[in-house]
Amino acid sequence: MNRLREHIEAITPLTDEEFEYVKTFFTLRKVRKNQFLIHDGDEVKYEFLVLDGIYKVYYIDENGKEHILQFAKKDWWMSDYIGFFKQQNSKMFIECLKEGEVVSLTLEGRNKLAADLHKMDHFFRIKLTNGYIALQQRIMMLLSGTPQQRYEEFVRLYPDLISEVPKKYIAEYLGVSRETLSRLYSNTNK
Amino acid sequence: MNRLREHIEAITPLTDEEFEYVKTFFTLRKVRKNQFLIHDGDEVKYEFLVLDGIYKVYYIDENGKEHILQFAKKDWWMSDYIGFFKQQNSKMFIECLKEGEVVSLTLEGRNKLAADLHKMDHFFRIKLTNGYIALQQRIMMLLSGTPQQRYEEFVRLYPDLISEVPKKYIAEYLGVSRETLSRLYSNTNK
Repeated sequence: MNRLREHIEAITPLTDEEFEYVKTFFTLRKVRKNQFLIHDGDEVKYEFLVLDGIYKVYYIDENGKEHILQFAKKDWWMSDYIGFFKQQNSKMFIECLKEGEVVSLTLEGRNKLAADLHKMDHFFRIKLTNGYIALQQRIMMLLSGTPQQRYEEFVRLYPDLISEVPKKYIAEYLGVSRETLSRLYSNTNK
Repeated sequence: MNRLREHIEAITPLTDEEFEYVKTFFTLRKVRKNQFLIHDGDEVKYEFLVLDGIYKVYYIDENGKEHILQFAKKDWWMSDYIGFFKQQNSKMFIECLKEGEVVSLTLEGRNKLAADLHKMDHFFRIKLTNGYIALQQRIMMLLSGTPQQRYEEFVRLYPDLISEVPKKYIAEYLGVSRETLSRLYSNTNK
């Protein structure tokens, strides 16, 4: 749980006593490759903070086509946040691409933590702010980003993932063909 | 400022004393049609809560094409949030489509309010949560929404705007041609 404490304290310092209380809300989970943390149609009970490993958050549309919403690695949060915050069933899958560990938190736990500790309300607000900015950047990329810009944005967001995630998933995330991705990749690494 | 109080108290009740303090951070502004609240290249000093009127938040890409990020009406917040939170110059324009009133808040004011009053930290966290959900829905619509689904989402989000905003802007927001929009519009109103 030290990594959880480091993660929170990057935003707000906690006393030992506060952290002892905070950590009672989190559950540590080991995750194997190809394991699902959230499955389309299930109740969304948890959000997850990644301590280790690589994960893919995606959904499948009415025509059976897969769309990747985000990847997640150390220090990223992930869930089907629409389902989580609205307490609806999931429209997403979260699949582990590289084994690791996460801690899970329920919405009830999140709300109680935020209500009990002003520091944690602050922590969640800052995290949401960063998440909001990332989503807005994603929207702008989808609306007007060239393949080159989308690729550069991906490298900026996930510098260590470009070699860790199968190319077909990166192409899917960027909304470009694998041929285009290969071209971008070789241009950038010249 | 009563409308500001109502807006906040829809999420968290305030004492008279607390609201007296809160309102010192906000500045009321009348806005005329076609006036700009934020202009591409300017410092992003404020976020705005709409008390009245209709506004368009958009940017212009490298090829001179306009992209609408959102519309805003009563009880919606708007800014160039990337520029606002990161204190960078704006990449957005906010233009008034129908005259009204807004209150403005600086980032410094926002942070001070949240630090001083746990209730306001809570308020901003809830607002950010709703904003996060809306952006995620927008991303899913952009990735996989059919024109019909995008139109229905727009009507759900902005029920009273469909008759108030010029059709060309709605078509632009949805990423469909004006002919497609007319067809969707007449299908839905049959």
